[in-house]
Amino acid sequence: MNIVFVLFDNVTQLDFAGPVQFLSRLPGASIHVASKDGNAVTTDSSFSILPGTSFAQCPQADIICVPGGHGVREAVADTAIVDFVREQARTATWVTSVCTGAFILGAAGLLQGRRATCHWAYTHLLPLFGAIHEPARVVRDGNLVTAGGVTSGIDFALELMSAIAGEDVARTVQLALEYDPAPPFTGGTPDTAPEQILFNLRQRVYDDAAERMEAAIRLLPMNRTDA
Amino acid sequence: MNIVFVLFDNVTQLDFAGPVQFLSRLPGASIHVASKDGNAVTTDSSFSILPGTSFAQCPQADIICVPGGHGVREAVADTAIVDFVREQARTATWVTSVCTGAFILGAAGLLQGRRATCHWAYTHLLPLFGAIHEPARVVRDGNLVTAGGVTSGIDFALELMSAIAGEDVARTVQLALEYDPAPPFTGGTPDTAPEQILFNLRQRVYDDAAERMEAAIRLLPMNRTDA
Repeated sequence: MNIVFVLFDNVTQLDFAGPVQFLSRLPGASIHVASKDGNAVTTDSSFSILPGTSFAQCPQADIICVPGGHGVREAVADTAIVDFVREQARTATWVTSVCTGAFILGAAGLLQGRRATCHWAYTHLLPLFGAIHEPARVVRDGNLVTAGGVTSGIDFALELMSAIAGEDVARTVQLALEYDPAPPFTGGTPDTAPEQILFNLRQRVYDDAAERMEAAIRLLPMNRTDA
Repeated sequence: MNIVFVLFDNVTQLDFAGPVQFLSRLPGASIHVASKDGNAVTTDSSFSILPGTSFAQCPQADIICVPGGHGVREAVADTAIVDFVREQARTATWVTSVCTGAFILGAAGLLQGRRATCHWAYTHLLPLFGAIHEPARVVRDGNLVTAGGVTSGIDFALELMSAIAGEDVARTVQLALEYDPAPPFTGGTPDTAPEQILFNLRQRVYDDAAERMEAAIRLLPMNRTDA
């Protein structure tokens, strides 16, 4: 079973690192971490990732997974990335994303008419790709599985493993990776966070970030054609 | 505030990727991901990590964090790694580890007489370094903070951020990274996992892995001197 992760510059590395850690323990899985030319990609966390393969050399995926990050703004307009994702998804059994990686699926036309989610600060942009936002941490619509922001990729990976290989396999990997989360606080979602913390974070980061993401999406050929 | 992560070949990448994602959002933090010569290190998940710096060029840490993985078996015997960790820890405000990274702290003599934890399958080895195992997901003993297996690094990072910068900062990063964990199953610890799953996992992986880790630890000069 070929599991392909698609990397690009300025990826939010935990969007990728969580799922790949879990899915690499799936029995029979062969992990292929791919970037455009097989070169290192930058991350948001002061290190780079050296992928194992390039788009040209990557085998056809049984599962394709696209992480997100600020680099998605450039990635959605990069035809090499979008074409690779579309072509991989064509024959994949599972088409998946974490965080704003959903927008790369969207740019490849893979969210049209589908239920999906992404990072909470960007969910209002999903309709720009014809998607219907479903408010959940992990959303499955047929063979499309999309996860919310960053850390949701871990829960997504466990759910996917369970669907593919059964509950015992998922539980075994969960135990191996000691996934018994105990956050010191609640408040990991807009609905549960203290109001002032949500307000400040939006104002300091996400109002601007979502606006810039929207501008990038509205420039895509698929949206210009619609106009 | 300099936050130094120590990398080595065959690291369990999520031990590192979780904490670095959270701590890179700490206001005023400067992240330094270091390997011996600044070269790429292999991970357990089919990709490599290009660190930002080498041991020689790395500034003195305010926080040092050591991840784990099967590569710890070689790392505990690598004087370049152990000496770097000891020298960094000498002046660091916080000395920390995730998973079996604790054993590298131990090899540097930093666990002597301290309460600590690590991945559940290896906690019986902590006394080989003079540490007292405390059964918790994150254990703080003065300036030493050790976390359990792999995913516990995320909870560790949030607790550390809260101790350093206050609850509001930790909650803000938690919300930004949408950390509202919802594992599809319980059972992420030996105490809560189904008995058969624990038994099989031990037999298939951890009995042997812990034995090999123990053999590596018993060969260390610190233990040979004690004999």
